[in-house]
Amino acid sequence: MATVLPPNLLPPAFQPGTVWLAGAGPGDPGLLTLHALHALTQADVVLHDALVPEAILSLAPQARLEPAGKRAGGKRTPQLRINQRLIELARLGLRVLRLKGGDPLVFGRGGEEALALAAAGIAFRIIPGVSAGIGGTAAASIPLTHRELGRSVAFATGHDSHGGLADIDWASLARGAEVLVLYMAGRQIGAIAQRLIAAGRDPKEPVALIASATTAAQTVRVTTLAEASAAAVTLPDGAPILIVAGPVVALRPLLAAWQQTEPMTFVSPDLESNAPDVTLSRAHG
Amino acid sequence: MATVLPPNLLPPAFQPGTVWLAGAGPGDPGLLTLHALHALTQADVVLHDALVPEAILSLAPQARLEPAGKRAGGKRTPQLRINQRLIELARLGLRVLRLKGGDPLVFGRGGEEALALAAAGIAFRIIPGVSAGIGGTAAASIPLTHRELGRSVAFATGHDSHGGLADIDWASLARGAEVLVLYMAGRQIGAIAQRLIAAGRDPKEPVALIASATTAAQTVRVTTLAEASAAAVTLPDGAPILIVAGPVVALRPLLAAWQQTEPMTFVSPDLESNAPDVTLSRAHG
Repeated sequence: MATVLPPNLLPPAFQPGTVWLAGAGPGDPGLLTLHALHALTQADVVLHDALVPEAILSLAPQARLEPAGKRAGGKRTPQLRINQRLIELARLGLRVLRLKGGDPLVFGRGGEEALALAAAGIAFRIIPGVSAGIGGTAAASIPLTHRELGRSVAFATGHDSHGGLADIDWASLARGAEVLVLYMAGRQIGAIAQRLIAAGRDPKEPVALIASATTAAQTVRVTTLAEASAAAVTLPDGAPILIVAGPVVALRPLLAAWQQTEPMTFVSPDLESNAPDVTLSRAHG
Repeated sequence: MATVLPPNLLPPAFQPGTVWLAGAGPGDPGLLTLHALHALTQADVVLHDALVPEAILSLAPQARLEPAGKRAGGKRTPQLRINQRLIELARLGLRVLRLKGGDPLVFGRGGEEALALAAAGIAFRIIPGVSAGIGGTAAASIPLTHRELGRSVAFATGHDSHGGLADIDWASLARGAEVLVLYMAGRQIGAIAQRLIAAGRDPKEPVALIASATTAAQTVRVTTLAEASAAAVTLPDGAPILIVAGPVVALRPLLAAWQQTEPMTFVSPDLESNAPDVTLSRAHG
């Protein structure tokens, strides 16, 4: 499959025996970067997280797909096994694409994979992606920063590698960051909110919980720090959850009514060939 | 100009009389998203920041280009004037693309523009981009997070709207965020480093200063908190500067030797039509 890119942009060559660690963005295929699209069309094998949607994987019809990472087959592939697999595949002389949700270095453990590749003497590229904390909050009509309401924003992970509360100085973070974005914190939000309130944040501070951000299934609940834990259990089971706390969340109702958030939609090749007028369906897409 | 997109992805329609606020990423045209590319090919007018590179603007040959934002013509366009211009252009029934460097809502004042559009009753879309704090650190071989070294990361702006030090609780941020990413802080890094050290951060903590991140002109200086202010003055004048402090900066030498960082390159149409073999030059691109 030829690369679909503007003709004046010349991408770097994806050399056999190298690994590209790419972010697929939060869900909407329209948030793929051109580098990631190019990588998808050139890869021999794609080792992908379970969260990467079908619409994005379909852009690599020439590649062998290998699921890895959390939820693959109902259980988590150990990180060391993934590192080893990337090295194995590269040593076979393949163009290896490691595709993760969001950005590969923002709580994606891509740094550990890059370190393993460097230690094995394998050349790699890092293709950044739109992180859920940025793309997901935008899709929920929440400006992450604001000259008056959000001059500092912190991204933190909700849990440590054993599923407990992450070992972070939550009290200092509560005082230093006007906006807090929590990844994978659905189960820990009660404990985190308690610490933030104890450190002086207003229990009535607005909080948004965003499930399946930027996809057609996106669900947003706006609540308060004090009520966040109760709201979390009302979200769809198993969906990735992003949590944002801070005064900027209060801007959502001002923006949401005028904001267009429809993602790019995926049409399977069969449907497309049956479509009477592709141009028309595109205009309505 | 037709949209250059994979045939199975149907983009939302860019309706006349609406405004799309898009991030162009940190510089490398390969970090554009598919939504941003689509917007460029469909826009009637592009109101762009001065930092958006020529290679990206060239993807909108059908559009009228209007520079705005910092450095346009050597002086800054006032924010209220930009808001008003977006409203004016939309009311003329144009497809208006507001294109910013990085992400529009991460210290880009896109939130203020969206609020102005909503208040005027104009429909808008926000197209997130790869923020410099994420894409620029990756290009400098610095993993933004790490399971042991970086479980929390804070983004802050170095200066307030009058050019002074931003009114942030730096001491709390110093204690709560293992990794600190500072935008537009070249002039304030001395004052910020002093506050971080006073709050207990090691004066020898590694700091990276990154100028013109992800472009062919990217320059990286690695130094320490204590020396950061002296290092900042050695960077190219006028280039956008990103600063990262934290133990993850120490991983850079382990990764840099094996990391490919070449951006997508732009070939002007004239050069391309003279090229004897586009396929060959693409393979070397």
